Amino acid sequence: MSYIPPVKDLMFCIEHLSFWDQVSAMNVYSSHDLEDISAALESYSRFCQEQVAPLNHIGDALGAQFDNGQVSMPTGDVRTYAQFVEMGWQALVHPVEHGGMGFPRAAGAAGVEMLNAADMSFGLCPLLTDGAIEALLLTGSDAQKATYLEPLIAGRWSGTMNLTEPQAGSDLGRVSTKATRREDGSYGISGTKIFITYGAHDLTENIIHLVLARTPDAPAGPKGLSLFIVPQRLVNADGTLGAENTVNCVSIEHKLGVRASPTAVLEYKDATGFLIGTENHGLAYMFVMMNAARFSVGVQGIATAERAYQRALAYARGRVQSRPVNGFSKDAVAIIEHPDVRRMLLRMRSLIEGGRAIAAATAGLLDLAHHQEDPELSALAEFMVPLVKGFCSERAVEVASLGVQIHGGMGFIEETGAAQHYRDARILPIYEGTTAIQANDLLGRKVMRDGGKAARDFAARIAETEAELAEGDETSQAIGAALTEARVAFETALNWLLDKSRNDIDAAFAGSVPFLMLAGTLAAGWNLGKGALVAQKCLKAGQDTVFMTQKTATALFFAQHMLPECRTEMTRILHGSDSLLDADFPEY
Amino acid sequence: MSYIPPVKDLMFCIEHLSFWDQVSAMNVYSSHDLEDISAALESYSRFCQEQVAPLNHIGDALGAQFDNGQVSMPTGDVRTYAQFVEMGWQALVHPVEHGGMGFPRAAGAAGVEMLNAADMSFGLCPLLTDGAIEALLLTGSDAQKATYLEPLIAGRWSGTMNLTEPQAGSDLGRVSTKATRREDGSYGISGTKIFITYGAHDLTENIIHLVLARTPDAPAGPKGLSLFIVPQRLVNADGTLGAENTVNCVSIEHKLGVRASPTAVLEYKDATGFLIGTENHGLAYMFVMMNAARFSVGVQGIATAERAYQRALAYARGRVQSRPVNGFSKDAVAIIEHPDVRRMLLRMRSLIEGGRAIAAATAGLLDLAHHQEDPELSALAEFMVPLVKGFCSERAVEVASLGVQIHGGMGFIEETGAAQHYRDARILPIYEGTTAIQANDLLGRKVMRDGGKAARDFAARIAETEAELAEGDETSQAIGAALTEARVAFETALNWLLDKSRNDIDAAFAGSVPFLMLAGTLAAGWNLGKGALVAQKCLKAGQDTVFMTQKTATALFFAQHMLPECRTEMTRILHGSDSLLDADFPEY
Repeated sequence: MSYIPPVKDLMFCIEHLSFWDQVSAMNVYSSHDLEDISAALESYSRFCQEQVAPLNHIGDALGAQFDNGQVSMPTGDVRTYAQFVEMGWQALVHPVEHGGMGFPRAAGAAGVEMLNAADMSFGLCPLLTDGAIEALLLTGSDAQKATYLEPLIAGRWSGTMNLTEPQAGSDLGRVSTKATRREDGSYGISGTKIFITYGAHDLTENIIHLVLARTPDAPAGPKGLSLFIVPQRLVNADGTLGAENTVNCVSIEHKLGVRASPTAVLEYKDATGFLIGTENHGLAYMFVMMNAARFSVGVQGIATAERAYQRALAYARGRVQSRPVNGFSKDAVAIIEHPDVRRMLLRMRSLIEGGRAIAAATAGLLDLAHHQEDPELSALAEFMVPLVKGFCSERAVEVASLGVQIHGGMGFIEETGAAQHYRDARILPIYEGTTAIQANDLLGRKVMRDGGKAARDFAARIAETEAELAEGDETSQAIGAALTEARVAFETALNWLLDKSRNDIDAAFAGSVPFLMLAGTLAAGWNLGKGALVAQKCLKAGQDTVFMTQKTATALFFAQHMLPECRTEMTRILHGSDSLLDADFPEY
Repeated sequence: MSYIPPVKDLMFCIEHLSFWDQVSAMNVYSSHDLEDISAALESYSRFCQEQVAPLNHIGDALGAQFDNGQVSMPTGDVRTYAQFVEMGWQALVHPVEHGGMGFPRAAGAAGVEMLNAADMSFGLCPLLTDGAIEALLLTGSDAQKATYLEPLIAGRWSGTMNLTEPQAGSDLGRVSTKATRREDGSYGISGTKIFITYGAHDLTENIIHLVLARTPDAPAGPKGLSLFIVPQRLVNADGTLGAENTVNCVSIEHKLGVRASPTAVLEYKDATGFLIGTENHGLAYMFVMMNAARFSVGVQGIATAERAYQRALAYARGRVQSRPVNGFSKDAVAIIEHPDVRRMLLRMRSLIEGGRAIAAATAGLLDLAHHQEDPELSALAEFMVPLVKGFCSERAVEVASLGVQIHGGMGFIEETGAAQHYRDARILPIYEGTTAIQANDLLGRKVMRDGGKAARDFAARIAETEAELAEGDETSQAIGAALTEARVAFETALNWLLDKSRNDIDAAFAGSVPFLMLAGTLAAGWNLGKGALVAQKCLKAGQDTVFMTQKTATALFFAQHMLPECRTEMTRILHGSDSLLDADFPEY
């Protein structure tokens, strides 16, 4: 079973949904046109398809291996990672002045999707390195940038995020790892970190750990955390590698999925660390890295869903079983002919294309927000990030589960491969902040804090798309009408939540995840609707008929099958908080 | 992590939701009162909790082992199965005249739930034996009953269903295993069967395979199938065991879940088989077994969901993390205090209690239909079976997934145990007929065939419950109002489907699974509503306040959070068929 990167749809999203006119007009991206992006993605897609995708199943079977403090990766991963470095793919979105290719974020998201669809375990290493690069770019000193950025952007070194401790998961205020200032300005880091993705491995010559820790006199809670660079091997003044740091891998986890990615317990024993920025501001710096990683985890959701979809589609085309329900044939047909198999495939496809569309849109907004410092766009971008993470990760689990279902009994057999996506996808709504954490972020920071301003801007933009759809043909109008109903449900929920935020905060947060799923589903429907407008225009001009017809079909399916969920979520928010808060959980 | 069988709720369902007044009035069950059932379930619950539940995790790790044609089970399973036989639990629902205990089906469902919650892999063996017993009771000759029933009901022998072949999954008409009549009246059975649960194992001294095969002159398709008894070891005239039959286990599957239950490929090489009933009627006989098994698979869904829920609840009580969202405390609290964790727990609980309620109702209806030969009740019972299978199995996957989510990162670690339920549950919407097969059965056989009569009877009974709820307090009225909206959605969808069944059968079947989920969710809400009426009565009388308060709370949560999905499913049915049927799946 091969994986074929959906480059055409990825480029469609970049060109039509990522605010490309504005993004490409910025100085920082003026040297790249769509043809450059397309050429880069085509080249990267070949690497993903030919070199990475074959690692997926064997890597799952072999897993990362731990022996006496050392973690060894499957040999295929080691070989292919070396090629990844040689071809320089880690550099895709990073600044040219530090050795990067300087592509915009929407192109980067396309790259993340292709690599992670090819092999999510493999893709996790560059994903975390990207986050470390982003954090260093924004918060590192010039000397730190000079030391670490070039080898990270080259992929020769990898990066990690060290947040979690046994007592500190979602609640980072409970981090207790200690950082003691030394006379030379460095810090001695001591403590135990768990769930460290790629915390130990043999793909790169060095690993740069970014570690949250607490100085002795720091205040308690989240405002006493500082962020440190702790290289696995210390770096000499000339950039060469020095002694091994005192960071030890104690064990790796036995996991449900992404088994070829090592999840390490790391023990820091007075390890040498270097402060980033100033003391006690570590959480804010870490959020830079975390936001980048959250966005990318959403994209991983699209990725694993796409792989599950391609596998299910191939099976549905090849598996002949049962006569058609309409009785028009006495012969059994390929199961793709059966209405319910089509329903499942279209549900998968529309959730994937919807997720891809909001990822592209958000990537564009993040670029515009980052480089233009436009407060409205910044707010909208920030509003969208938890939607990308929350919606795409939750939907990935659903899509992977449908992928198993389409295979029938074969789906439950590990050798088929469908089950691996179901196992792999399950981490996505958990790591880099659970869905509830995303929802709290959305409701608390992105909605309540500005009194719903960004959320209303979001709704207003959707209303504009509705107006355009209303001018179109019957299909466009149907999509527009479904979008209107969903958007009104969103606004109704929004008003209720803002009202409750003033006098009944528990009731508001009882609806946080329903609100996240409402907003995410609406955002996907909106961007699919925008895509349908483009497709209608192309179809009128006779351009790309097969592809554009299916873009429209997907948007219509999503409007008819998925957007109605928005009203259900609204009902849950408006009428479901009392039963939720009042219930008790007595012993049996 | 232990499992505590929810005997109180199981008894509540039997007493109040399984039509107990009518069931207990039947001669066949007149010797058992509720106290007998309660005593039996209490005793069985201790066995499940103490002997079976500890096997669950270790069995998953060890798995069934295949070596040179022999399958060996984990030693704990062998030891505990022997106790199961000694205590005679296989006999629970089977007729007294064949050595059974003669309890009604609702008690049997409670037993199936407890055993499968304790260990679904373990529970599968008795589940299939139950199906074989049921098929023999209804279709076997007196001689066959005399030979096979007693040891099966004692649990000394186990039963299997042999339907699937590589080319014949959902489409049994494609079965090609051959049955050649011999001079002595027996048949020589030759062919390969796959996905045979407990097709080979070392728990019992004999295995009775019920095998679908085709005689040489049989018509093609499903009307040419005959059903055969093929004992793994032949049985002498005096009931002692004779020679090994020529049925060989070629391999067992490497599966996503239920790993301690062997799934065998069986090769029949002119094996000796005995015809059940008459030739070419095999599929009808097999449906007897399949219907029993389908109902039980629905109950397995409740079971694995309950186990996942208990694990998540225990974790949510013990895990302290983050301050309350309302800011009323500076200290971190157990995560069960956080609104979204409560939401997930209540969603799990309400789906479980809703599923349990419809299983009890359906069990009662099946008993009434079976023994009283009432056509209206028979039709309603038949209408409910695909709901129990479809709704409870699909919801089990969802509940198990929420169970992982509540554990956060720990949920992804296999040692925690939550992931096992997520893996185990995934087979439920697939085996014994996928969800689409259940939906086709519901729409084609249970709705279209009688012009919607049974479906309207179902709706009318729900309307009666609504009327009773409208007489109650505010909570009852809220439940009733949500039920009305859901029931109207059901009737609207029903009318549309019946209309389409006359002129656009593809459009009707495009909505088959949405209709199944609509009806299943409605049925659960209905039975939870009936339970709430009972609970309100008890609360007024000051009886069992803690338990009855939570029965009401669960029903209210379901009404507010789950019943609104019915309208979404209706929208999918009415407005979603064109996009589904028209879409195409071009190459990338």
